[in-house]
Amino acid sequence: MEKRTELYSGKAKSVFTTDDEQRMVMWFRDDTSAFDGKKKEKLERKGAVNNQFNAFIMQKLAAAGIPTHFEKLLSPQESLVKRLTMIPVECVVRNISAGSICRRLGVEEGLALNPPTFEMFLKNDALGDPMINEYHVRSFGWAEPEHIEKMKALTFQVNDVLKALFLDGNMLLVDYKLEFGLFNGEVMLGDEFSPDGCRLWDKDTREKLDKDRFRQGLGSVVEAYEEVGRRLGMTFEY
Amino acid sequence: MEKRTELYSGKAKSVFTTDDEQRMVMWFRDDTSAFDGKKKEKLERKGAVNNQFNAFIMQKLAAAGIPTHFEKLLSPQESLVKRLTMIPVECVVRNISAGSICRRLGVEEGLALNPPTFEMFLKNDALGDPMINEYHVRSFGWAEPEHIEKMKALTFQVNDVLKALFLDGNMLLVDYKLEFGLFNGEVMLGDEFSPDGCRLWDKDTREKLDKDRFRQGLGSVVEAYEEVGRRLGMTFEY
Ligand SMILES: Nc1ncnc2c1ncn2[C@@H]1O[C@H](COP(=O)(O)OP(=O)(O)O)[C@@H](O)[C@H]1O
Ligand SMILES: Nc1ncnc2c1ncn2[C@@H]1O[C@H](COP(=O)(O)OP(=O)(O)O)[C@@H](O)[C@H]1O
Ligand SMILES: [Mg+2]
Ligand SMILES: [Mg+2]
Repeated sequence: MEKRTELYSGKAKSVFTTDDEQRMVMWFRDDTSAFDGKKKEKLERKGAVNNQFNAFIMQKLAAAGIPTHFEKLLSPQESLVKRLTMIPVECVVRNISAGSICRRLGVEEGLALNPPTFEMFLKNDALGDPMINEYHVRSFGWAEPEHIEKMKALTFQVNDVLKALFLDGNMLLVDYKLEFGLFNGEVMLGDEFSPDGCRLWDKDTREKLDKDRFRQGLGSVVEAYEEVGRRLGMTFEY
Repeated sequence: MEKRTELYSGKAKSVFTTDDEQRMVMWFRDDTSAFDGKKKEKLERKGAVNNQFNAFIMQKLAAAGIPTHFEKLLSPQESLVKRLTMIPVECVVRNISAGSICRRLGVEEGLALNPPTFEMFLKNDALGDPMINEYHVRSFGWAEPEHIEKMKALTFQVNDVLKALFLDGNMLLVDYKLEFGLFNGEVMLGDEFSPDGCRLWDKDTREKLDKDRFRQGLGSVVEAYEEVGRRLGMTFEY
């Protein structure tokens, strides 16, 4: 497999074509951003940690029957993935209130959400990723209704798998964001699952072990991500 | 029927108890507000026009089988209504893009929405009426899921009735907001339907005949509301 030209460089990752037009290389950089790109920093080891963390989670999800783009680790900061036609709709499940839902709805942080909430956001930094619903998706043609249904079902399926996985490491999966795309017409989980795109709290102390450490300037960001990995039995290579 | 004490004074209307605890008097004031109450003005005749406009529309909806709180006109600015336990969820249907959806989603004004969109907003001025979905309603207990389903069905039913009604007057029903409540356990349309809570455009010129005239400082606000009424065959008393 030969890595060729850069296709796109996002806020945290860059993707490259390969000699197989249905595959691409995803390079996890050390760049970290928050607030729609307004706060930015390079955090040493973050690219490697997130790449290997994502590989670990994607394999757990695949084992549970969830179709994902992940194929294999290529290097500490690179993975080979299927090239998807991305759907510009971010899917969020929340088990506990935190972050934007607290500001938007005036609810306090840390409330158990029963049932967990499902939200969709249009992936559009310039608009600040506005919340949308099924009607917007249909009227503006952002995705097919049946693909949205599938994304929603898969997002909840991920919750069952990962809540249990993190609980084994004495952590609470507070919320997470997923991105999906199409591969030969099939909806597949794309992008990444890492502490950059979810919230994880220590079950006993409720210490934050995710990107909120960066957003809130709490320090020890990558160290916390490594701690999460260690609790799941992972070892990282740099 | 005897009007007793003031129960609540909102941004545009005041409500009073009566000797029947299941009924109340709704007094349509001349006060007009926009942007969550940040822009305010008294517009002569507006209370009377909206009260009589609302009575006209509520009777059309009732005739079409939609349960509403409206009972009868009491005076130019007052109506007798059933006292509901209000559900703090505003229901919005849009046939054409305009207003907040354009800002939020970066779409231009005037696009036909196929299918029409259905949106829910938490009625909370302090939070700026944030958009919500069924999961928020359930998790935070703002309404019963079956009541939300009923509100949604009724909101779309209103669209069929009123699109046709306004079209007969050469007007386009662009969008509208409804509020519902419970009366002896039954979901009923409450609050008002008037040019304060919907958008109406002349079908040919697309001239705005609704509260956007106030929001955008276009002038002739109440005159436009009267013109809408006239096109529907109404006459107003002051
Ligand atoms: N399998 C895939 N195929 C094609 N594009 C993908 C795939 N997985 C993720 N992407 C896209 O690649 C980009 C990843 O880089 P990232 O730094 O997260 O970008 P962004 O700033 O757009 O979020 C994202 O835009 C994401 O939607
Ligand atoms: N049938 C009803 N029973 C009880 N409350 C009602 C009924 N219809 C409307 N309301 C409530 O009465 C108030 C009407 O006054 P308004 O000036 O529109 O207030 P607001 O500023 O809260 O929108 C609203 O809060 C509305 O929810
Ligand atoms: Mg991203
Ligand atoms: Mg009101």
